[in-house]
Amino acid sequence: MKIGILISGRGSNMVALVDAAQRGQIPDSEAVVVISDKPSAAGLETARERGVETVVVERTGQTREEHDAGIISELKRRDVELVCLAGYMRLLSSDFIQAFPNRIVNIHPSLLPLFPGLDAQRQALEHGVKITGCTVHFVDEGLDSGKIIMQRAVKVLDDDTVESLSVRILEQEHELYVQAVRTLVTSRTEPIRK
Amino acid sequence: MKIGILISGRGSNMVALVDAAQRGQIPDSEAVVVISDKPSAAGLETARERGVETVVVERTGQTREEHDAGIISELKRRDVELVCLAGYMRLLSSDFIQAFPNRIVNIHPSLLPLFPGLDAQRQALEHGVKITGCTVHFVDEGLDSGKIIMQRAVKVLDDDTVESLSVRILEQEHELYVQAVRTLVTSRTEPIRK
Repeated sequence: MKIGILISGRGSNMVALVDAAQRGQIPDSEAVVVISDKPSAAGLETARERGVETVVVERTGQTREEHDAGIISELKRRDVELVCLAGYMRLLSSDFIQAFPNRIVNIHPSLLPLFPGLDAQRQALEHGVKITGCTVHFVDEGLDSGKIIMQRAVKVLDDDTVESLSVRILEQEHELYVQAVRTLVTSRTEPIRK
Repeated sequence: MKIGILISGRGSNMVALVDAAQRGQIPDSEAVVVISDKPSAAGLETARERGVETVVVERTGQTREEHDAGIISELKRRDVELVCLAGYMRLLSSDFIQAFPNRIVNIHPSLLPLFPGLDAQRQALEHGVKITGCTVHFVDEGLDSGKIIMQRAVKVLDDDTVESLSVRILEQEHELYVQAVRTLVTSRTEPIRK
């Protein structure tokens, strides 16, 4: 399974997926390209250090559709079969979703459908929930609204800050994302597998 | 701490609280009355078997405020300090909330604020979440909207039905409700303790 990963920043979940594929924890798979919409994304260097090709596709002056077409082209010509978002900060166009039907996944730091969008950890603390977590889900055109694949719960501690909670959720994200992608790859059922 | 429990049906969480208080698992506390708005509630007999006084306050022909006034009167003349809802199927009036400020708690079979109201387990299954749970919360005038006290996560299994999921959540509810009430009683902080 050829995996393409989209980032906008540090991409720590990208690193988790790349490392897992390289160690064989995601069998018969390779992260073939890491694409960022931002040239400054720190994850680009981290990916190159791991021998993964990187591409920057900037949005500047383009519509979402034009920008997505550029990314789709980079993915398609490397025969990418599974697209993993890892801190990619843009909604995908309908064209993008249709180009990879049920083959785009994302991870989000809450138990969706609760607390979608930005600052999910802050939303959880402000609401006063005692349990939050992370969710791997298929991507559709909505904001963190696609079908849920896997979730993991994380306890909120009485003295948690946004930072401390985010760190504990992120540790679980790295494990859960690898577990979910491994399941998608090994199940090899249509429409995941071409 | 004198505890009053409101039920509308079987009241299995009422049984968990009564038994825990009688066993000393909720220290220095007694379930002094179980009140039902329905004379047919099966929990009335279960409570009496455990030596707990029972009262039926029917709604028939009364406004919510009149009905709640009847219940408040029964609670107050037994010096009830903490009101626990256990499958009580009515929203409380503003008068009721104000009569027991921050001393009315409820348990709900989801990780609130997700899936409030009826059929929380069915809502969870229909949304396709992989983790749900239960929540003990203070009661306000909204539907399952009060401040969260404790939560516990429950995994949704691939072959879960509403019934099988409800049973597993209910087991956790019984433990969580006892744990939450024990914490409220033993912390004895205002405004929980008179």
